Amino acid sequence: MNETLLMIPGPTRVSSRVLKAMSESIVNHRSAVFGEILTETNEMMSEVFQTQNQSYLITGSGTAAMEAALGNVISEGDKVLNIVGGKFGERFMQITETHGGVPVELEVEWGNAANPEDIRYILEEEEEIKAVTMVHNETSTGVENPIEEVGKILKDFDALYVVDTVSSLGGADVQVDNFGIDICVTGSQKCLAAPPGMAAITLNDDAWKVVDKTESKTYYLNLKKYRKSGSKAVPETPYTPSVSLMYAMNEALKIIMEEGLEARIKRHEQAAKATVNGVKAIGLELFASEDASSSTVTAVNMPEGMTDKNFRGTMRNKYRIELAGGQDHLKGNVFRIGHMGNITHREIISTIAAIEMSLKEFGYEVELGTGVAAVQESYMPGNNSLEFF
Amino acid sequence: MNETLLMIPGPTRVSSRVLKAMSESIVNHRSAVFGEILTETNEMMSEVFQTQNQSYLITGSGTAAMEAALGNVISEGDKVLNIVGGKFGERFMQITETHGGVPVELEVEWGNAANPEDIRYILEEEEEIKAVTMVHNETSTGVENPIEEVGKILKDFDALYVVDTVSSLGGADVQVDNFGIDICVTGSQKCLAAPPGMAAITLNDDAWKVVDKTESKTYYLNLKKYRKSGSKAVPETPYTPSVSLMYAMNEALKIIMEEGLEARIKRHEQAAKATVNGVKAIGLELFASEDASSSTVTAVNMPEGMTDKNFRGTMRNKYRIELAGGQDHLKGNVFRIGHMGNITHREIISTIAAIEMSLKEFGYEVELGTGVAAVQESYMPGNNSLEFF
Repeated sequence: MNETLLMIPGPTRVSSRVLKAMSESIVNHRSAVFGEILTETNEMMSEVFQTQNQSYLITGSGTAAMEAALGNVISEGDKVLNIVGGKFGERFMQITETHGGVPVELEVEWGNAANPEDIRYILEEEEEIKAVTMVHNETSTGVENPIEEVGKILKDFDALYVVDTVSSLGGADVQVDNFGIDICVTGSQKCLAAPPGMAAITLNDDAWKVVDKTESKTYYLNLKKYRKSGSKAVPETPYTPSVSLMYAMNEALKIIMEEGLEARIKRHEQAAKATVNGVKAIGLELFASEDASSSTVTAVNMPEGMTDKNFRGTMRNKYRIELAGGQDHLKGNVFRIGHMGNITHREIISTIAAIEMSLKEFGYEVELGTGVAAVQESYMPGNNSLEFF
Repeated sequence: MNETLLMIPGPTRVSSRVLKAMSESIVNHRSAVFGEILTETNEMMSEVFQTQNQSYLITGSGTAAMEAALGNVISEGDKVLNIVGGKFGERFMQITETHGGVPVELEVEWGNAANPEDIRYILEEEEEIKAVTMVHNETSTGVENPIEEVGKILKDFDALYVVDTVSSLGGADVQVDNFGIDICVTGSQKCLAAPPGMAAITLNDDAWKVVDKTESKTYYLNLKKYRKSGSKAVPETPYTPSVSLMYAMNEALKIIMEEGLEARIKRHEQAAKATVNGVKAIGLELFASEDASSSTVTAVNMPEGMTDKNFRGTMRNKYRIELAGGQDHLKGNVFRIGHMGNITHREIISTIAAIEMSLKEFGYEVELGTGVAAVQESYMPGNNSLEFF
């Protein structure tokens, strides 16, 4: 009853089915029984990535998978086009530098999406760009980048297309094969609704060709080893994986298969739309430009005079709903509502209602119920009818 | 009832208390409540390392912590003395190479412990050795290396002393401070009896001085970031950690505190002695030289004519006891009995009994009960009295 509702952009709520699966007894990670679980989990992972490629699970955070993506394809001095419009875009640039790459930065104002034509322009001007990094859903700003459009442009160039879908996969449409993504990474604790600690990566043949020609800059995240271990008669991981988290991922992915990927993405889009409508009805401003706004997280400008501590503190301590703050220079200036994973109309309604109450308590002019009504309206037949699986 | 008893050198059996703790609901990894769990876990970790240093938990396998140890102290061209007497000694050497270090290899015959005087000799002959890597317990051969004696020698030299205690910490005596260890790493799924997927590292001031002067070669495992995040008012990890595994580690470490570190180490030593006595009484030969034999894993030569598949297959499928095979060139030539974590006389007795039965079934001359009697004898008062906590 006192459990806090996590409305942050990861980790997200994990269902009891997944928690139960996770607490099964440990088996030998090099046994046939584990090999089967691993294979099944990898296969479901590829389905969610919408790819025919193999997928690999890595024990670590989404950042580990981001590092795996670049640390296996960059050689000293290689140019990488990093599209940077938030904290995670920056992270790809920092990883590029860590591994001796030379970042070519496309700076995008925080809150906006990247313009695909800018990317074409740079690729035409700059020679020998080895890879382009893009963050699909910039968790720090609530912006969704146009990965499909950028993929179309990249078909005309040799650069590898590396996409971070950590906070979008399973909640937004990511078609790895159709969008021409060469390397795609994600994390367990966002839209997939598994506990944190696992990441996944998938590479197509073009990417593997580069990996095969490149000396890996990382040992733990050496992808050639993941491929080799994964292709044994009894598939395994190169190093001891988190057996318990593999159980959890397996179960979380089964739940996604049962819901259906399309239905799940629709549910996320509905939740995003309802959240945006609720927030606007209260009179709050979105941080991200609305045409770029994310289907998994909404960033909202903090109302004038309100502190992070008062607002999010009240939400957490009084209403038991955890929102995220702003990151880096946005700290105190925005708050973020995560609506990813196992999120329904119920959680959106409670969250918007608690936001109304918290603001009113601190003297803001809020007519209770206004935001909630907008959320309800968003879910009514004709707008977005609810479907359950 | 059909659950397989894991007598492998990790992952080990996890108690239901730990499994239950792991399945608690996920909290925000940047909240005060998680900060407290993190601090408490780190502190208990330092107690088990027997150090005054801070410890850091990393979501990943023991190999990730091994890479963190070297990837933060090696600069291009630095010489590292790698003591190699098994697969994990080799791994340290491979990690040295991955990060641009130049390995100076001290080759030790598999099955033997390193001779401290050989290490002194190399350090006197070779100039500018930046670090010395040693694997305390070589899981692949069942050998325990003399980390205390080597520590005494290293006091006369500037090189950092980097020790892998992945399969020994919590089961053998590792006094990080007293032995002069500069960087020590371990994993969750061995003697600590937590599920796999977490690793820990501790560094003293000498090590931090080198880290501060070195550009980290890894992003996910950049230790400066772990220190920075860990020293915030609400301590956190730089990237989303596995919240569930942190719960599990916390509970597993509490169980260690309840048992008492000294009692736990004694229990492991008893189990090792009983296993060795049992194996010898059956007429089997130890792979490791007996004066170097490990307190957490026993490697045994496969009897002439017996195949891995028949022997370990029967143990697993008929007697529901999982043993480990040999690694690399030892595949098929040895089998390994892990006796780490939550292991008592009961499991050792069942294991030795099943080994007797499996061998007899394949025509080996074994008098049933001989090995078991030797195990029983090992636990009798006067030899090693049993104590429970």
